[in-house]
Amino acid sequence: MDFLDAIKWDADGLVPVIAQEATTQDVLMFAFMNREAVQETVKRGEAVYWSRSRKRLWHKGEESGHLQKVHEMRLDCDNDVLLLKVTQLGHEPGIACHTGRHSCFFQKLEDGVWKTVEPVLKDPESIYK
Amino acid sequence: MDFLDAIKWDADGLVPVIAQEATTQDVLMFAFMNREAVQETVKRGEAVYWSRSRKRLWHKGEESGHLQKVHEMRLDCDNDVLLLKVTQLGHEPGIACHTGRHSCFFQKLEDGVWKTVEPVLKDPESIYK
Repeated sequence: MDFLDAIKWDADGLVPVIAQEATTQDVLMFAFMNREAVQETVKRGEAVYWSRSRKRLWHKGEESGHLQKVHEMRLDCDNDVLLLKVTQLGHEPGIACHTGRHSCFFQKLEDGVWKTVEPVLKDPESIYK
Repeated sequence: MDFLDAIKWDADGLVPVIAQEATTQDVLMFAFMNREAVQETVKRGEAVYWSRSRKRLWHKGEESGHLQKVHEMRLDCDNDVLLLKVTQLGHEPGIACHTGRHSCFFQKLEDGVWKTVEPVLKDPESIYK
């Protein structure tokens, strides 16, 4: 069986994807892929997601240059979630978030309040022209 | 504003949750929480998910004893995904997966085939009586 057929796609033909940085092990972001996006990711060795807002394939970093080199792809026990081990390219340290931060998970719950605990590494206005 | 109101719940009133082991940084599992589950998680300091199959709150480890102590809760840039830093209790090394494995992400794509790359640490039949 094709490895794509093993994936349990949701009602919209998508699968949730967690991207984790290979070196730091930081969880960088969460997104979705459709069948074509998974195929493209494997073919290119770079993360290609499905943008639900733009309703099209989204080659991560296509605008920002912050591509994700994919080292490893994993599937969970229910065959319905993917985990990628990636290198976040284009900036050091890597910028995965559209806010210019390292990781999308920069809001930490502290005493009942979400606090921003990661700095903006690069102004988003200079990332997206 | 209540921190629960900051979360963007999906059409079913749920939010996806990634559980990451605090020590190893391994991504252990992926699940969902509703509003009450997030509240309970914060109150108890242990992960309480929403089981979509059983349609009820699911205090992780309630049957297996493999509770997840929660050290940290993070929210992503779109306010619609949670990341937990946890200690997986009840076995050493921790067992997060219902198959008796450390992590749910034990299937690795190798040459176009999903290969099981993590051992069963404990027979599920002895975990769930």
